[in-house]
Amino acid sequence: MTSERTKRDTSVVGNMVIAQSGGPTAVINQSLIGAILEAKKHREIRGIYGSLHGLKGLLEDRLCDLRKETPANLELVARTPSSALGSVRKKPTPEDCVRVFEVLRRREIRYFFYIGGNDSAETTLIIAEEARKAGFPIRCFHICKTIDNDLRENDHTPGYGSAARFVAQAFMGDNLDNRSLPGVKINVVMGRHAGFLTAASALARVFPDDGPHLIYLPERPFSMDKFIEDVNAVYAKHGRCVVAVSEGISDEEGQPIVAKFTRGETDSHGNVQLSGTGALGDLLAQMVKARAEISRVRADTFGYLQRSFVGVVSDVDAREARRVGEMAVRFAVSGRYESGSTAIRRLPGRTYNIAIECVELAKVAKETRHMPDEFIAPSGNDVTPAFLAYARPLVGHLPKIGRLKAVPLPKV
Amino acid sequence: MTSERTKRDTSVVGNMVIAQSGGPTAVINQSLIGAILEAKKHREIRGIYGSLHGLKGLLEDRLCDLRKETPANLELVARTPSSALGSVRKKPTPEDCVRVFEVLRRREIRYFFYIGGNDSAETTLIIAEEARKAGFPIRCFHICKTIDNDLRENDHTPGYGSAARFVAQAFMGDNLDNRSLPGVKINVVMGRHAGFLTAASALARVFPDDGPHLIYLPERPFSMDKFIEDVNAVYAKHGRCVVAVSEGISDEEGQPIVAKFTRGETDSHGNVQLSGTGALGDLLAQMVKARAEISRVRADTFGYLQRSFVGVVSDVDAREARRVGEMAVRFAVSGRYESGSTAIRRLPGRTYNIAIECVELAKVAKETRHMPDEFIAPSGNDVTPAFLAYARPLVGHLPKIGRLKAVPLPKV
Repeated sequence: MTSERTKRDTSVVGNMVIAQSGGPTAVINQSLIGAILEAKKHREIRGIYGSLHGLKGLLEDRLCDLRKETPANLELVARTPSSALGSVRKKPTPEDCVRVFEVLRRREIRYFFYIGGNDSAETTLIIAEEARKAGFPIRCFHICKTIDNDLRENDHTPGYGSAARFVAQAFMGDNLDNRSLPGVKINVVMGRHAGFLTAASALARVFPDDGPHLIYLPERPFSMDKFIEDVNAVYAKHGRCVVAVSEGISDEEGQPIVAKFTRGETDSHGNVQLSGTGALGDLLAQMVKARAEISRVRADTFGYLQRSFVGVVSDVDAREARRVGEMAVRFAVSGRYESGSTAIRRLPGRTYNIAIECVELAKVAKETRHMPDEFIAPSGNDVTPAFLAYARPLVGHLPKIGRLKAVPLPKV
Repeated sequence: MTSERTKRDTSVVGNMVIAQSGGPTAVINQSLIGAILEAKKHREIRGIYGSLHGLKGLLEDRLCDLRKETPANLELVARTPSSALGSVRKKPTPEDCVRVFEVLRRREIRYFFYIGGNDSAETTLIIAEEARKAGFPIRCFHICKTIDNDLRENDHTPGYGSAARFVAQAFMGDNLDNRSLPGVKINVVMGRHAGFLTAASALARVFPDDGPHLIYLPERPFSMDKFIEDVNAVYAKHGRCVVAVSEGISDEEGQPIVAKFTRGETDSHGNVQLSGTGALGDLLAQMVKARAEISRVRADTFGYLQRSFVGVVSDVDAREARRVGEMAVRFAVSGRYESGSTAIRRLPGRTYNIAIECVELAKVAKETRHMPDEFIAPSGNDVTPAFLAYARPLVGHLPKIGRLKAVPLPKV
């Protein structure tokens, strides 16, 4: 009887709202659909509402009724990249919170779920704290995602495996292209502060001389002189060179390279725009042409394809994204937590396995995680076998490729 | 008896050499392997040799023995993008031809196969003509490929379907990304003179308001003023705008836009470098930011991923690429032709079907084909349903995507 009463005490009955925020991923809708389908199993949750464009939808009371979606359509949406509810980049002010609480109160919402990266975790934390101060009863949960893989407390994050898979498949092809028409090829990969996505380019290597031959991460200061030297050395050895560069590479003082050498544009927060421009790739290509005196030099910037391409998804990533959505709802209705963030922990053992935990929002919000030192080669221009072992299960089996034995004809 | 003798008269016994040239494609090795496996069936063909890096390998006698490859490895290579024998961009001089004939004579080569686009057809034609003048007995065949889809005499070309599939899947994702975080997104697609690949972006549309909302092809003069006007109109209607732009867009006088507004770099032939740089995309984005006064504007240049990405292949394209390789060998040993180029003809009828013909090299060499008028909307910034009907069977079924019904909650 006592345990029955305890259970009843912790249960909160009401409506829930879920929203998506920040940069989309290929599997972010798996988390959304996972949460919706899980919510349907719990009698504590009545209305299942979606907020359009994250916090913006909550401020404007633009909510939709997710119980009106058919199961078949939900499954189709789960397999569709990029935030189905729309996204936003917005940090709530205290005044925003007051307005949000009005909407939540009117809509009898007692559960709040926010799918996103560290900024979205911060938004969730702000709402949770302001609600506590205002005495507004709501359970706030952040559901982890980011292709950058830079959330603290997480072994890795949903979205990363699929983006890493795209990067790996792109480099597999680009290495073949460069082998066919030799020269220097520079590919710029997303990741402002963390090099995980750029590092995934190393998964493309099949044969010992395969590119990427050089990998530059934001975790190590970038020197233009060293870069030119490195390219020359690889070119001298292989007659070609494929380079992976993180968009966020910076010099010793932390100044982004693209800003240092070009008139870099900045956004309203003073951040230099890194994505959606070919400036860094073009700059590096010009430097190689001019200073390494190699004529065929090309640069591509992978851009938004990395996070939204249709048809390249890691199965493991999709499954885990679904599971964090489900687990967030379970944590919320369990009554064990008033707020929290889903975090992926890798379990020890020979076969890959994970557990999903509920961690404090403050531990995930704002600050980001970087590549650990043991994943970066001492040279500073490559990754280690430890990184490859870490990343492989997240990306899944890559397509098999081959090359001709090409046995030379005897001289006549 | 007479027919027996005729058959014997037309048969040539000797070795064959095959090579690849120009820009790689995702299925160019299907043609290579198709030709090798077909050659193995014909007793006229003794040695099956590959020349490394096209004409360059022939000039340097860098040949390999393709009979030494295992069937399993050949099949693996067939599924691997980008020229497995290596490629080159080189037009033979009469002196080159003399040197090539020396190698061919020494190697007892009587069959020459060259896989490539219109430049490679020209190389094949030059070698065939010089051989005839020199009285050197060799049968020369060009095997069609190009992602640009701009070979004359062909309904379409191997390599196009897979590149078009990549472009379509990229735009499907990018449209979802843009819908999630609205703004103007400009994507630059390969294709110097022909807009077929850029036009394939239209296959990405699933819902009526899906992008690309504007498509600019090299077949129509590009006006910056009209472009800004078009973007403004779409943005006013949808609150967002996805644009597909061919890298080769030019003004009324035929000057490439990238050269007109920037200090465009040129290659040794005086061609402005279009691929492997983000210049055009960045230029257009800056113009929209400045003149349309829309703040969130991004540009991506798809670059070399379009022709070499691993894991995105049209099945139809792969099958047809295999078949042109096979057919080239059949045409060569049949004795009906001394030289020629494989050309894909679409057969009339309700279901998609093709025939592969042997056409004169001169009809395919040098000049390129453009998008016919009936494929371009009168507005000049879109394609027609006729184009979609043309392109769909080449690209195959695209991944299914969905969106939420997002039924709004009633106002309270």
